[in-house]
Amino acid sequence: MSALSKTPKIVLTGDRPTGPLHLGHYVGSLKNRLRLQDTHRQYVLVADVQALTDNADAPNRIARNVVEVALDYLAVGIDPAKTTICVQSCLPALAELTMLYLNYVSVARLERNPTVKEEIRQRGFERDVPAGFACYPAAQAADITAFRATLVPVGEDQLPMIEQTNEIVRRINRLAATDVLVEAMALVPPIGRLPGTDGRAKMSKSLGNAISFSATADEIRAAVRRMYTDPNHLRACDPGMVEGNVVFTYLDAFDDDSDGLAELKAAYCRGGVGDAAVKRRLADILEAFIAPIRARRRHLANDRSYVYEVLRAGTEAADMVTAATLGTVKAGLGLFSLQPIAGCRVA
Amino acid sequence: MSALSKTPKIVLTGDRPTGPLHLGHYVGSLKNRLRLQDTHRQYVLVADVQALTDNADAPNRIARNVVEVALDYLAVGIDPAKTTICVQSCLPALAELTMLYLNYVSVARLERNPTVKEEIRQRGFERDVPAGFACYPAAQAADITAFRATLVPVGEDQLPMIEQTNEIVRRINRLAATDVLVEAMALVPPIGRLPGTDGRAKMSKSLGNAISFSATADEIRAAVRRMYTDPNHLRACDPGMVEGNVVFTYLDAFDDDSDGLAELKAAYCRGGVGDAAVKRRLADILEAFIAPIRARRRHLANDRSYVYEVLRAGTEAADMVTAATLGTVKAGLGLFSLQPIAGCRVA
Repeated sequence: MSALSKTPKIVLTGDRPTGPLHLGHYVGSLKNRLRLQDTHRQYVLVADVQALTDNADAPNRIARNVVEVALDYLAVGIDPAKTTICVQSCLPALAELTMLYLNYVSVARLERNPTVKEEIRQRGFERDVPAGFACYPAAQAADITAFRATLVPVGEDQLPMIEQTNEIVRRINRLAATDVLVEAMALVPPIGRLPGTDGRAKMSKSLGNAISFSATADEIRAAVRRMYTDPNHLRACDPGMVEGNVVFTYLDAFDDDSDGLAELKAAYCRGGVGDAAVKRRLADILEAFIAPIRARRRHLANDRSYVYEVLRAGTEAADMVTAATLGTVKAGLGLFSLQPIAGCRVA
Repeated sequence: MSALSKTPKIVLTGDRPTGPLHLGHYVGSLKNRLRLQDTHRQYVLVADVQALTDNADAPNRIARNVVEVALDYLAVGIDPAKTTICVQSCLPALAELTMLYLNYVSVARLERNPTVKEEIRQRGFERDVPAGFACYPAAQAADITAFRATLVPVGEDQLPMIEQTNEIVRRINRLAATDVLVEAMALVPPIGRLPGTDGRAKMSKSLGNAISFSATADEIRAAVRRMYTDPNHLRACDPGMVEGNVVFTYLDAFDDDSDGLAELKAAYCRGGVGDAAVKRRLADILEAFIAPIRARRRHLANDRSYVYEVLRAGTEAADMVTAATLGTVKAGLGLFSLQPIAGCRVA
């Protein structure tokens, strides 16, 4: 077995704490993390510094959501014994690496990044794009490389970020004339994105189409009741469409009884199944899924000292790893060190 | 006496370690620092991170010059008992503050900074300007504010940097709803810039028109011999011009015998004084000025452990100050802290 194949696969993933997480996060990433934590060395970064790049006027809200997101992680089953949960703003090596990397990326290259371009458009920044936002690919490269991550679960739209990270890695390694950094691979999950309860592509708290992990049974039922189905399926006896039907999209994601679901779909297509019945099934399944998460979340929310302890321990472990990478990069590039090399004392 | 007038005046100044310092630095800044260290709380920052913004391909050279610049400081008389000498790359709070400030400056505002615009032009960066270089006003704001500097000695051309720093200070203070940061004032020295030995406005090692602090007596003599005087002053008996005459510009800066110098100037203008005699006077004065500095520098260069100890102690003191400012800013903005506030434990 070669040394390379023994290298543990290191996964870095995380969230910007702009609000509590929801079912969209579960399908898009959390579910995957629950699997990965059993097979990989996994770091989950609460990216509060990155959240400031487009929320500079609400640092308070970002700070509050650090704890909310941590509560979501723990409630959903991210296990701090398996996964290192850490907070970006408490890891100075990430800022130092970003400052360093910014010298190895041109402004023009940052501006060419299609992901950033699209996000700037979405946010309507125009000429007022904050410098921190424009520079965030370098910050993300710092995050990924600091943890020596080899796998980064991302959506298709984030592939240019990994590409830019690896460009920086190669530039630094070339300059250091040795591999001080490792390249990362994107891990694009096979499952698509869960649409909002209103059928829009993106589930988001601010769009009011999200189901959070603290949603009550009534809230879940109300959200499901409002879901669009097949607009031509007016009476239970009419034949209905399953594709593009939000209720079935959710059932596909959360109904574990695949035989039962297949039967239901067939019946719905033939005609004879009312929307109310399908919605009842979904509401029951979602409630069964969320109820234990909600209970754990409520319990943990009353034991914040435990949550802080998880974040403290995780961030401490992450600090060691990221500081070590920073040290390796600085030494590799031959940057100044207050520890003079023995034998270098005489000019 | 009000609390305000008791506030110590804090000076931040420094150099990018791109090469050893020279007489131009002495006239432009070091002389001023020797005065300020007796009356002010003075920090001198060896800005090796900033030096990378336009020397990204030579991190090694920058690192070597950190020690060279420190040797120059000590040789010239910067007293570590009075002045805190510290190294930028060893102060993580500066990187963290920069990352934070970048969210409060737009890309357009950075691009409008006339100093940066001119420097980009001078360096011929065009579209390839490194992001680190484009962002350096935010980094400089971090330096100035981290030390809580109230006075920043700068050349006229650097005034826009102080202006941009204070814009960030006001933005952060407004958001924190309290003065977590202090505004800085530029201290523009009355003495102009010392021209290069070739008469060019800028003295620089790379232009080959600098006299360094380790210049030997022969090197000084040779440099003075090559200096331009008055091109119309061909014979000793001819009347000569003092203005724009590089030798006299240097005498103005280094000749302490003002009566003697005034007499010499009058005689030169009348005619009857040869360039050789004036140059001999300057060479003697420069040698008398540099000789003890050169000797101290040589001595210190053989005692690098002392130099490292000065940098270590200064950087440690600076780390405390800058980390405290970072803590104040983070708390003021309400950023996340791993120390939960008592009474905040229950949701």
